[in-house]
Amino acid sequence: MLMIPGPTPVPEQALLALARAPIGHRSGDFSKVFADVTAKLQWLHQTQHEVLILTASGTGAMEAGIINFLRRGDRVLVGENGKFGERWGDVCDAYGLQTERVKAPWGHPLDPEVFRERLTADSAKTIKAVIITHSETSTGVLNDLVTINRYVQDHGTALIMVDAVTSMGATSVPMDEWGLDVVASGSQKGYMIPPGLGFVAVGPRAWEAYKTSDLPRYYLDLGKARKDGAKNTTPFTTSVNMVMALQASLSMMQREGLASIFARHHRQQQATRAAVTAMGLGLLAGDHCASPSITAVLPPAGVDAEKVRSHLKKHFDIVVAGGQDQLSGKIFRLGHLGFVADRDILAALAALEATLQQLGHAFPAGAGISAAIAQLGQA
Amino acid sequence: MLMIPGPTPVPEQALLALARAPIGHRSGDFSKVFADVTAKLQWLHQTQHEVLILTASGTGAMEAGIINFLRRGDRVLVGENGKFGERWGDVCDAYGLQTERVKAPWGHPLDPEVFRERLTADSAKTIKAVIITHSETSTGVLNDLVTINRYVQDHGTALIMVDAVTSMGATSVPMDEWGLDVVASGSQKGYMIPPGLGFVAVGPRAWEAYKTSDLPRYYLDLGKARKDGAKNTTPFTTSVNMVMALQASLSMMQREGLASIFARHHRQQQATRAAVTAMGLGLLAGDHCASPSITAVLPPAGVDAEKVRSHLKKHFDIVVAGGQDQLSGKIFRLGHLGFVADRDILAALAALEATLQQLGHAFPAGAGISAAIAQLGQA
Repeated sequence: MLMIPGPTPVPEQALLALARAPIGHRSGDFSKVFADVTAKLQWLHQTQHEVLILTASGTGAMEAGIINFLRRGDRVLVGENGKFGERWGDVCDAYGLQTERVKAPWGHPLDPEVFRERLTADSAKTIKAVIITHSETSTGVLNDLVTINRYVQDHGTALIMVDAVTSMGATSVPMDEWGLDVVASGSQKGYMIPPGLGFVAVGPRAWEAYKTSDLPRYYLDLGKARKDGAKNTTPFTTSVNMVMALQASLSMMQREGLASIFARHHRQQQATRAAVTAMGLGLLAGDHCASPSITAVLPPAGVDAEKVRSHLKKHFDIVVAGGQDQLSGKIFRLGHLGFVADRDILAALAALEATLQQLGHAFPAGAGISAAIAQLGQA
Repeated sequence: MLMIPGPTPVPEQALLALARAPIGHRSGDFSKVFADVTAKLQWLHQTQHEVLILTASGTGAMEAGIINFLRRGDRVLVGENGKFGERWGDVCDAYGLQTERVKAPWGHPLDPEVFRERLTADSAKTIKAVIITHSETSTGVLNDLVTINRYVQDHGTALIMVDAVTSMGATSVPMDEWGLDVVASGSQKGYMIPPGLGFVAVGPRAWEAYKTSDLPRYYLDLGKARKDGAKNTTPFTTSVNMVMALQASLSMMQREGLASIFARHHRQQQATRAAVTAMGLGLLAGDHCASPSITAVLPPAGVDAEKVRSHLKKHFDIVVAGGQDQLSGKIFRLGHLGFVADRDILAALAALEATLQQLGHAFPAGAGISAAIAQLGQA
């Protein structure tokens, strides 16, 4: 049982679609599937604009979202308060951009006011893009995209590029309403299918910038994907079986409905946070910046986070994630993203309660699960 | 029934592996699978060197194989006698390389002597790489990699980079014995699994060039893949389910054995060519340069290639490929690559015989299938 922030559990309908004999990627039958999947992706992104499908991980999708719309030497602001924010800064460096990192400590949200200051001071309009990790998977922090984006819109020319890898499908990211220019995500998250596909939604201001972008790329060239996407195909052989699985999972999501999906993620997030707190554990991210999809937990004093993880795996066959880089050994991360039922949350939290007791951490018996049940019942 | 040069048919063992619930890509269990798959890939490539797994199509793998080992402005020779050779030239152009195309007409092989002349004239050692499409999928031509590579080895410093997308797993490409520096391929071909993974094998001379390469990349950075590969993991989330399917298919290939796999492809190629000829059709590629995996066929005078394809699809549910770009409508292409039994070849050729008769093309009844049977029996 996977309770990590990706790969997330995959429903049977999607697994069975994966197991079908592949059809030709240039066939009329596949084009129909591709058109349907594209429309469903637009529904999920709440956009009229292109949502392009790449055979790549979320990192490949985000890199494509950056390098197709900028010129060498362009000044970019990159929010950095976790592993993924760091990564986008590294991508910008790799392509010779003038990268300005706007940092916050891991576990804290980015400060929108720093972005406001830089953007309002930029009367010469030298800032070409602001790159934000919406839900920082490494810390379970949801950055305040709404406020930061408002400042970017006020700036008038900078593009807003969003890593929505663990927010898309977990909370509302209405691309058109917010005026987001680039939104990147990956298949093994809210999409409920295995890793292997990346998605990049691109708005008209970004396509305008594409015309003058000069960063080298070929496989990740989104202009090619756009051109072929208009004919319901891809420039390079796409992962046919994964697209079939995606059709199955997006169909399930449409039946559930966006409001219901987001409410479910919020409810499970609240239940997880309440339970963890009731068990006397700490939360890395505050209530005002809690990710809808991942909760980073501080183990009790004297208990190693890795010990909690290995106990959960050994005795309950439940896999939770560890800390990354500077948080390694200091936290464990509970995923509640994608195909997760309230029952799964209860199972994971009950197993966590058992684990903590068995590791000698004292708290009122049943406190965690009772708090979770109360939260689940409120929705 | 797919008889195209990719996606190729997928055996049930691989489909069932695809349909398993994903495991964590950072788990110990997955690392064991990854190590096993890597060893099997080395077996297939007949190499002791790294074979890296990318979540990308064959194009992404080949692009990675080019851009990790060169510097901006480097002079490269690119063999171009079909759509894929053209593509590698375009990749080189996109990254600002000094691209010299060595051309041959589509359907003809590259002339090794042209490479010899350029390489021997290059006493200043300005040629940094020679890029060859081994089996040109668009025309069914197998280029003379052995001879061209000999000239590259004589040159002494140029790297040899090989697109082995439709030759790997169909004919012997002994990387170490031949001294190939970069060999790229893709999962939906000889590997017998769906599209979604790309492979790049890299030799020590290429890694030496990596140290000074300055072309920008991040997702396609093979140094990252090498570093994490040594720990049996990947820098970015890999397509877990596809790697599980790959383990299943490579296990099947090991049970069959390399010699037997290559003999099967050769036998089916010979049977296809004999049958097509006996039915009075033309072959685009000559006997001396016939691809082991794909046969491009010229339809009879007065019969449109697309008509043959649509008839095969409609009446026999067999999908064969059409011509690409300048060969569009002029040829159809029969794939005999990967998970193809002699029975499948007989079925496809019998259906082709029926199709041609029904479209009014006259030839001795049974001639094609008899020729195929005779060839299959010889092996």
